[in-house]
Amino acid sequence: MAEMYTLHEDPRSGNCYKIKLTAALLGLPLTIRQYDIMRGETRTPEFLQTINRNGRIPVLQIDGDSGARFLPESNAACWYLAGGSELIPADRFDQADMLRWMFFEQYNHEPNVATLRFWLHFVGEANLSDQQRAMLPAKRIAGQDALQLMEEHLAQRNFMVGGNVSLADVALFPYTHVAEEGGFGLEDYPALCRWIDRIGTLPGFVPMD
Amino acid sequence: MAEMYTLHEDPRSGNCYKIKLTAALLGLPLTIRQYDIMRGETRTPEFLQTINRNGRIPVLQIDGDSGARFLPESNAACWYLAGGSELIPADRFDQADMLRWMFFEQYNHEPNVATLRFWLHFVGEANLSDQQRAMLPAKRIAGQDALQLMEEHLAQRNFMVGGNVSLADVALFPYTHVAEEGGFGLEDYPALCRWIDRIGTLPGFVPMD
Repeated sequence: MAEMYTLHEDPRSGNCYKIKLTAALLGLPLTIRQYDIMRGETRTPEFLQTINRNGRIPVLQIDGDSGARFLPESNAACWYLAGGSELIPADRFDQADMLRWMFFEQYNHEPNVATLRFWLHFVGEANLSDQQRAMLPAKRIAGQDALQLMEEHLAQRNFMVGGNVSLADVALFPYTHVAEEGGFGLEDYPALCRWIDRIGTLPGFVPMD
Repeated sequence: MAEMYTLHEDPRSGNCYKIKLTAALLGLPLTIRQYDIMRGETRTPEFLQTINRNGRIPVLQIDGDSGARFLPESNAACWYLAGGSELIPADRFDQADMLRWMFFEQYNHEPNVATLRFWLHFVGEANLSDQQRAMLPAKRIAGQDALQLMEEHLAQRNFMVGGNVSLADVALFPYTHVAEEGGFGLEDYPALCRWIDRIGTLPGFVPMD
């Protein structure tokens, strides 16, 4: 039987949007099951036992001949969906270079650009703990560094890897294009702005909720 | 011509050790070029211009028909070296699941388990900034959560993914097996200890410097 895909997600999460964007660019149907992470809906015993022991979303559920299988980590879920497609370069170096940017996204970009958006746009600055407030300046600088690295890279090319869109773009687009919700000024990054516009015109593109 | 590999590294870094362990398990020769990150040797103009604009190690240099190419991000470098080998499962789900653990390593494990080792073992608790000191309790809990997730996963299997060693094990081994240098008590994780012993007996295994 053909595989069926269910995304366990919170629509405010850019990590979840990565998977929806991958599926949309590939024309793959995706069933959506929503949770409210602010209400702890991914920390229930049922969620921890069945969906993800780590208590995090997104999780991609894959129903097929092997029964239901669950894949946490947004970039791994994108990799699964895009297997054999043009979103993963066939060239060995380009493929590793694509993963390089996806690891950069999770290590250097998301913990700064996405966390400041979460804290300032959803939690609210007045509700931050003293410890979170103390971390704002360092995360601001690290987020700017991540955006600047992308800016310099994209000044000379249309997409992050090779000449075409790949999962490196899909992974970096979600939190970059809403970085202003975390207080980052995108007007400082003209190549990044052109890249954001370019992603928005791809066939099959869907916006973030 | 055959490709030649040079690793730009600091021997104290578990991220660098991942790449040396991958090459050793595969029997690939690797030239080593060492830098002292504590002295800023990866922030020189030459390093930033040629090796990695991000100013970080490890970087895998690949010399071949296309000239010298540079691949930052430890897990991407491991992926490149292991291309076509048994360290990357051929099964589509297992391959994505392997990447899932490699992203988990960079997002949930390294920033806590490795950072506490760096702060306590190399920088020294007396030399931490107030902000770093304030982050210790949260990083302690998040590091324990990461180790506990591995413990529960490994209680039922010999390796992280499928029945054989893969890059998921290679990525998670370095900082896990020296977690006690960051103040984590490995005696609380018996399945993890058996897995550490198992990795140490693999053909070609090399210890961390």
